[in-house]
Amino acid sequence: MIDDNATKRTELADLGEFGLIDHLTSGFTHINSSTLKGVGDDAAVIDHGDYVTLVTKDLLVEGIHFDLTYTPLRHLGYKAAVVNISDIVAMNGVAEQLLVGISVSNRFSVEALDELYAGIKLACDKYKVDMVGGDTTSSVSGLFLSITAIGRAKKEDVVYRSTAREHDLVCVSGDLGGAYMGLLLLEREKQVYKANPQMQPDLEGNDYVLERQLKPEARADVLVKLREAGVKPTAMIDISDGLASEILHIAKDSGLGCRIYENKLPIDVVTAEVAAEFTIDPTTAAMNGGEDYELLFTVDVNDFDKVKAINGIHVIGHMLEKAEGEYLISNGGSLYPIEAQGFNHMREEEK
Amino acid sequence: MIDDNATKRTELADLGEFGLIDHLTSGFTHINSSTLKGVGDDAAVIDHGDYVTLVTKDLLVEGIHFDLTYTPLRHLGYKAAVVNISDIVAMNGVAEQLLVGISVSNRFSVEALDELYAGIKLACDKYKVDMVGGDTTSSVSGLFLSITAIGRAKKEDVVYRSTAREHDLVCVSGDLGGAYMGLLLLEREKQVYKANPQMQPDLEGNDYVLERQLKPEARADVLVKLREAGVKPTAMIDISDGLASEILHIAKDSGLGCRIYENKLPIDVVTAEVAAEFTIDPTTAAMNGGEDYELLFTVDVNDFDKVKAINGIHVIGHMLEKAEGEYLISNGGSLYPIEAQGFNHMREEEK
Repeated sequence: MIDDNATKRTELADLGEFGLIDHLTSGFTHINSSTLKGVGDDAAVIDHGDYVTLVTKDLLVEGIHFDLTYTPLRHLGYKAAVVNISDIVAMNGVAEQLLVGISVSNRFSVEALDELYAGIKLACDKYKVDMVGGDTTSSVSGLFLSITAIGRAKKEDVVYRSTAREHDLVCVSGDLGGAYMGLLLLEREKQVYKANPQMQPDLEGNDYVLERQLKPEARADVLVKLREAGVKPTAMIDISDGLASEILHIAKDSGLGCRIYENKLPIDVVTAEVAAEFTIDPTTAAMNGGEDYELLFTVDVNDFDKVKAINGIHVIGHMLEKAEGEYLISNGGSLYPIEAQGFNHMREEEK
Repeated sequence: MIDDNATKRTELADLGEFGLIDHLTSGFTHINSSTLKGVGDDAAVIDHGDYVTLVTKDLLVEGIHFDLTYTPLRHLGYKAAVVNISDIVAMNGVAEQLLVGISVSNRFSVEALDELYAGIKLACDKYKVDMVGGDTTSSVSGLFLSITAIGRAKKEDVVYRSTAREHDLVCVSGDLGGAYMGLLLLEREKQVYKANPQMQPDLEGNDYVLERQLKPEARADVLVKLREAGVKPTAMIDISDGLASEILHIAKDSGLGCRIYENKLPIDVVTAEVAAEFTIDPTTAAMNGGEDYELLFTVDVNDFDKVKAINGIHVIGHMLEKAEGEYLISNGGSLYPIEAQGFNHMREEEK
């Protein structure tokens, strides 16, 4: 009955996540003058006079985005809140409210949901965000989380993805690839445990990457540092799907090309060690491992000295005219085309 | 592993939907001065100067809130949008933006999702609402919809549930119980079809209640009529869980009692006929059948003539001091305590 009106069947995986979103949303136009920005950035932007309201929504689905065999519910709640707050931060805004939708099967107890909410509350307290509503329902099976974050910014402060300019510098906060290495470690230990439940998990010494995966942070602190240094990014996005995917968003939406330098990529020593253990190139982890939730942004070339002086900000490349394309320049000086191979939850099912 | 930190297991059904929401949200306090109202009304209210932003979120889960064997995806999309728009209307606001989160298994094709989005677009066009974002992901099984609606109102225009006053009149728009009768019809035909797929569905003459179930409307038109008549409701809520459940929200949140008169309940003739077929008391359908999405509101007793003059508004009772309790006065003059027996999606799983 689902396909009653359809003569043709196109699989979801054929379009991929971004293709599907483009396909489904392309028919919608905006009527209200208050809608400054709809689909296509980290958050929607709604005009409220001097200030704008920023709104973003993310779904987290058991078996697709998280695995409860190694994700404590408290961490899951924290992360679910943080990834939405991170979307508001990526617009150069301040998150102020959160709505939480939870759909659970009766496999979960009230005490289990208490743990989940304790994690959400921890994030609300840390980021000074108010939980203002939502919905709680049953599911036939599994746990579904839907979070909506609402933020505020002065209209002139909002930073979009699409406003990078030729010659701008590409910057990133923190370090990259750690969350992905944490995920690989947790997946490996799960397989070991399944094969032999008596085995103790071997996670020692890897706290840093495990925390990157299980308890990411939204880099609101970076916005403060940039403001203090008198730097306003020209374009910005948070890194949820991997650096490659995100810099392509900025480049394409801004109508530009870019160069990223492999030897400038910030990679933590633990990330590099775990990558070596898995015989994965740390550059691949940094470029295509997702969920780091660091900020990727462009700044005017004249702001070079100012951003260099900020601890934890790395200049990793620059923007060029569109015809130059998007390339990674390797340590050896070769050019590799940047391709989005990051997390694609629409395709993961196929694996 | 889910209950690792829990020494005790309380079943979700023990608390019920409202009890669970109270339990989970009671630990949260508000920090931001922009948060005027959080959990506990049709929508959250956020201060933006002269205007407020209204935000509401609903989840719709396959197998819990809808059955795709008799719900066309286009209708589902329309309804999912409308029930959220209705929440904004119930605050006396105008819905302007919508965010759509969809999680689907690969059982669904792109064409199936096109149908769903066509329904959402139909609602957006009708109610002049902009679709501004959301999230699209896989699920392991089933279809999950999470809609967030954003609206606007002048600060002084917002109508809460908790502000009814003693002697206020209780009013309802349209008629009640139809959506529930439509659901019973669809469920019956599904059982007939399962028993004998050759049988043709017997739905003729019942278009009205089927449409009430499959294609409900948000009563934004009622707000216009009230404004034109110079009437501002003192409290308001939309009827998603049945009149009994909703009038109890208004009474309890306002610290009052109420009387509802059975002979004043507006019930359509088709609703009454279908109720008779199922040997259900039409009053029960009106009081406890949900999903009518009509507006239930209170007005000052001096506005009686004004609301009486509005076509499609029915005065069905009045508010009293708390000690008087909440009662339905039957056609025979007996008093029956009003109890919420409406849709409780937390308990339905148990059936």
